[in-house]
Amino acid sequence: MKKEYAKFKTTHKVRPDDIDMFNHVHNSIYLDYVLAARYEQMELFYGMSMEKFMEMGYGWVVQSVQINYKRPLGLGDKFIVETGIESINKKGCRVIFEIKNLKNNKLNTDGWFDFIMIDLKTGRGVAVSEEMINLYSI
Amino acid sequence: MKKEYAKFKTTHKVRPDDIDMFNHVHNSIYLDYVLAARYEQMELFYGMSMEKFMEMGYGWVVQSVQINYKRPLGLGDKFIVETGIESINKKGCRVIFEIKNLKNNKLNTDGWFDFIMIDLKTGRGVAVSEEMINLYSI
Amino acid sequence: MKKEYAKFKTTHKVRPDDIDMFNHVHNSIYLDYVLAARYEQMELFYGMSMEKFMEMGYGWVVQSVQINYKRPLGLGDKFIVETGIESINKKGCRVIFEIKNLKNNKLNTDGWFDFIMIDLKTGRGVAVSEEMINLYSI
Amino acid sequence: MKKEYAKFKTTHKVRPDDIDMFNHVHNSIYLDYVLAARYEQMELFYGMSMEKFMEMGYGWVVQSVQINYKRPLGLGDKFIVETGIESINKKGCRVIFEIKNLKNNKLNTDGWFDFIMIDLKTGRGVAVSEEMINLYSI
Repeated sequence: MKKEYAKFKTTHKVRPDDIDMFNHVHNSIYLDYVLAARYEQMELFYGMSMEKFMEMGYGWVVQSVQINYKRPLGLGDKFIVETGIESINKKGCRVIFEIKNLKNNKLNTDGWFDFIMIDLKTGRGVAVSEEMINLYSI
Repeated sequence: MKKEYAKFKTTHKVRPDDIDMFNHVHNSIYLDYVLAARYEQMELFYGMSMEKFMEMGYGWVVQSVQINYKRPLGLGDKFIVETGIESINKKGCRVIFEIKNLKNNKLNTDGWFDFIMIDLKTGRGVAVSEEMINLYSI
Repeated sequence: MKKEYAKFKTTHKVRPDDIDMFNHVHNSIYLDYVLAARYEQMELFYGMSMEKFMEMGYGWVVQSVQINYKRPLGLGDKFIVETGIESINKKGCRVIFEIKNLKNNKLNTDGWFDFIMIDLKTGRGVAVSEEMINLYSI
Repeated sequence: MKKEYAKFKTTHKVRPDDIDMFNHVHNSIYLDYVLAARYEQMELFYGMSMEKFMEMGYGWVVQSVQINYKRPLGLGDKFIVETGIESINKKGCRVIFEIKNLKNNKLNTDGWFDFIMIDLKTGRGVAVSEEMINLYSI
């Protein structure tokens, strides 16, 4: 049976510098929104901030991303970033996300990030330890 | 006697993509922090959002900026952006700002922005009307 | 038989503000590298710049992206962005890309972008005309 | 008599992600253009790349910036960034700059950056050595 992992929500607001020539949030910025939400959720919900994680000598880096653009966000919009782990094992984890506009709860973008763990000194990938897998298995 | 204008505070948080190779907020990003705070304050405190302002056919554009870097912000930091008008007349306005780290109330950056009003259709500067000057003279 | 479309190469250089806390090009920036290369290639190789395209009242907007990170780019690196159309029809087109480091010709990232055409006035998707399909079918 | 220092020119091109809601290069991006030009000029003209400088354990960080916006750059524009040292001593240096649009040689922005040297380990300012002052005194 497939394990179900918890999902978490973070609310952010579009920054004026996120807007591009089409008067919408620039497409690459959505990746930054997911990253920002995920960092906050690591600290608040998993009890392990990225800062602490980096002090331990590790980093999570993105191996692959898919993102689907449904409806654009615009200037002044507030939005919810919901993320959750879809799967995690010693090779890494897949985090799925949805971004919804707070004013109408409609979907802006969804997709997934595949992360691997790296050793910050060598810059190379390392196996995700059992301890880490447990930490994220909520 | 010199008129004193109101000052307003907005709290924001560093986004991971704001961090640069020195592990601090990248120096150009502070301009975006001031801009974001100013947009919010236009809506909340002056009752005229940038969106409404643009619907009327106008934009505020930056003519000149000075920014002084005192202490860097880092990953996860929350900060207060305080801005206020120093002077306003038909030629434009000067907005002064201070950014302080919420965790210790120490000054990160300060400086000023000179703004002029433009007509969005022509892209050219226009005189700030009495109505606009009054709107901002709180 | 599947049609083969031409591929084009553009050389760019990492900008210092592209570097993030891991001392590498930030992951969302690669999308901007592909976009920049594609804009240049529209002008140089298809004879239809994005500026002209927008003057005609149209825009290409991204519907979906997949990007795979193989090796990071760092400060001062020059790189080649190779893009090409994989398929195009009235619903839109898929552009595939590879970014390679100029100093060793090794792959940094690859992936694809699905684009749709929009009418800039309405912001809505429109069918890609035969004329446009022919323009890109080189 | 005031010493005159050499000036250097670098040509860059606007990236599509640099464009903001006013269809011009976003105001904070000009700081990144100057930074990028300066990094290139350090390597090409002073024979000391930022990468080498950082390997020696030092960084140049910005203490203060003034930037004056004259004419905006737009999508597809190529521009020249000319920079030069105005003054340098053990406390730091002031770099002045001009950005001009290559298509008409008209001034887009000008201004100055005050830099101080930091020790990357401590993050604190250090005196600029005679050796460094000589290196930049061309």
